[in-house]
Amino acid sequence: MFKTCDRIWTNANLATFDGDIDQPYGALSNQAIGVRSGRIVAIAPMDRFDSGALSADVVDARGGWMTPGLVDAHSHLVFAGSRAQEFEQRLLGASYEEIARSGGGIISTVRATRGASVDELVELSEPRLLALLKEGVTSVEIKSGYGLSLEGELNMLRAARQLGERHPVRVSTSLLAAHALPPEYSDNADAYIDLICNDIIPAAVAEGLADAVDVFCETIAFSPAQCERVFQAAKAHGLGIRAHVEQLSNLHGAALAARYGAWSVDHLEWLDEDGVEAMAQAGTVATLLPGAFYFLRDTRVPPIQLLRKHGVGMAVATDLNPGSSPLASLRLAMNMACTLFRLTPEEALAGVTRFGARALGLAGEAGQLKVGMQADMLLWDIEHPAELSYQFGVNPIRQRIVAGEVKNV
Amino acid sequence: MFKTCDRIWTNANLATFDGDIDQPYGALSNQAIGVRSGRIVAIAPMDRFDSGALSADVVDARGGWMTPGLVDAHSHLVFAGSRAQEFEQRLLGASYEEIARSGGGIISTVRATRGASVDELVELSEPRLLALLKEGVTSVEIKSGYGLSLEGELNMLRAARQLGERHPVRVSTSLLAAHALPPEYSDNADAYIDLICNDIIPAAVAEGLADAVDVFCETIAFSPAQCERVFQAAKAHGLGIRAHVEQLSNLHGAALAARYGAWSVDHLEWLDEDGVEAMAQAGTVATLLPGAFYFLRDTRVPPIQLLRKHGVGMAVATDLNPGSSPLASLRLAMNMACTLFRLTPEEALAGVTRFGARALGLAGEAGQLKVGMQADMLLWDIEHPAELSYQFGVNPIRQRIVAGEVKNV
Ligand SMILES: [Zn+2]
Ligand SMILES: [Zn+2]
Repeated sequence: MFKTCDRIWTNANLATFDGDIDQPYGALSNQAIGVRSGRIVAIAPMDRFDSGALSADVVDARGGWMTPGLVDAHSHLVFAGSRAQEFEQRLLGASYEEIARSGGGIISTVRATRGASVDELVELSEPRLLALLKEGVTSVEIKSGYGLSLEGELNMLRAARQLGERHPVRVSTSLLAAHALPPEYSDNADAYIDLICNDIIPAAVAEGLADAVDVFCETIAFSPAQCERVFQAAKAHGLGIRAHVEQLSNLHGAALAARYGAWSVDHLEWLDEDGVEAMAQAGTVATLLPGAFYFLRDTRVPPIQLLRKHGVGMAVATDLNPGSSPLASLRLAMNMACTLFRLTPEEALAGVTRFGARALGLAGEAGQLKVGMQADMLLWDIEHPAELSYQFGVNPIRQRIVAGEVKNV
Repeated sequence: MFKTCDRIWTNANLATFDGDIDQPYGALSNQAIGVRSGRIVAIAPMDRFDSGALSADVVDARGGWMTPGLVDAHSHLVFAGSRAQEFEQRLLGASYEEIARSGGGIISTVRATRGASVDELVELSEPRLLALLKEGVTSVEIKSGYGLSLEGELNMLRAARQLGERHPVRVSTSLLAAHALPPEYSDNADAYIDLICNDIIPAAVAEGLADAVDVFCETIAFSPAQCERVFQAAKAHGLGIRAHVEQLSNLHGAALAARYGAWSVDHLEWLDEDGVEAMAQAGTVATLLPGAFYFLRDTRVPPIQLLRKHGVGMAVATDLNPGSSPLASLRLAMNMACTLFRLTPEEALAGVTRFGARALGLAGEAGQLKVGMQADMLLWDIEHPAELSYQFGVNPIRQRIVAGEVKNV
């Protein structure tokens, strides 16, 4: 089965995250793994690997570990402007009202993002994307949500698509027009939902800009009824569904999104067992965002035990955004998932591979080392995969492999 | 005054941290800064800078910000072994006793470190040091403390010195033999203190291996009386004094160390106002270690307001170590100092420049952009110095300058 490979890695320990392998991390030691035309086509123990009659490139992993490429399933990395001085003002004692009065808050990001061209958005966002890629991210979700107008939202998604064309990474886009109420609609949220359903979603679909929709279902954002209208429009256009829910209160948004077959619901600090059961039934992933929990100094941890009890898959993501998680590091999110949410290192790594991919509707494409998957893989200089969640700051990537090609950045 | 410079940076905004400049960050906008023979010799506004008749290299900073090189004033980055699997065991539910019984805890690091040669220690520690250097660290403190024997401690310090010779960084070493009780002395701590005072300190001094001593003053480690004996021996040999104090309880170690003129006392979650006053009187720096606070999920924050009230300088450091802060990132420590301890971005940056240097007895050499200082400087692609504490993951360093030479790593 290795005879027709383009490239083969030998002497590798694999953290496959293949659900059929009943070992922590889906681990297989001392393996060969072969790719052809960008896909994994062969995995076998070294003692069944015959190096004769091969035309493939052979890379000796020398006992290193290979994992699936990392998936950051929740980011807002396309935006303009900086909120650093707002961060400083707050630490100097300014209240939220004072910051809002001085032009801060999300509206400052909206203003800056609306004022930027697509090219400017690409240029401003590129360093954030590259920071993720250097850590081993091979798939990243990027949301709109700072345009809050037809053109503003489409421009963000265009920038996200361009980033995916320029760099060796799969970009999955989510249209998050229902992120905040734009000032033009400040006393008419339903009319803004009309705009989203009747104009923005169709336009994004027509241009192939959105893989999913997303909403912020919260008392300070949009009601469940408003979110449901967005889900219905998304369904009608064949888009995936995601939602920010149960971050600040329990509006039962998780159960609502699950009823619409959501790929993922995210944040979840206030999620209850009914919501968890609805997610389990629908196969909806719980995407945990410990960076925002940390940055906002939240104290209420998502119900990890309930998610485990009901077998709900947990993704871990950065939530990279200027207001509540300016942390461009998925490895840091893994450490925080363990340290703050008490995930095990195996759960944290599964959360940025197998379940990260599932949260993007990519379960059949990415997130596992398994025959048939796209060959997005990382070769690490580590002794044990727990190191990836434990130590932070040192980057032990030896090779970053996208669709079977070595693409170090 | 620029006529005799070797190299000049023009069009730079400077965060000088010069105490004589009464501006946040000691900021000066639109400046030229010149170096000769590794030292800063000229700083002046661009409108007083004459580019005629210069033989110097001129670097156009194009409106970027320059800061002093970063100082990590507390690290245990030389060690062997990994504690990743212990981290995993704990998250899988193992108790401290179970981990100790299975060979974990600090003693596992001691065993691995004792078993490594100096060359091996250098090789194992290099990736951690390089992670710090990439972020802009130009001075780093490195402690012993996992040898806990004459040869073991000296080997760690030899490795630290070699790291400083191999890489563009100033290494300040601290002999922390009084870190934990070695198993050979398990029922005779005073005899181990004898060994430290009579053998290890003199041997380290004879070989030029130690800039300071350090102790762990805590109920689970060494008593104030034992620490005082180490301070006395250090004084007799002309070494600087540092101490881990008031991390888990209040033994009044800060006041004790301050009485001996300590450069720095570190951790300080349980520090009281008497201790703060003693530090203020002695000019002892408070070195804050938010990474350990985060990783141990501590809830008691050091008394920042008292430190401010009494004008005690605050350093911020990584505490990089395998047991309680496996975080090789000073920028992350800065973010955590703001997020968890509510330092302002200016205090966090001062903590890794001016006060970091003072915590290492280097106040006259490093930590400020000021005529006479060694020219350890960073040129950043940022709009405002608050960004360095706010955003994490993106590294906006354009140039890393050590003793006047550009030394990007
Ligand atoms: Zn989000
Ligand atoms: Zn320490």
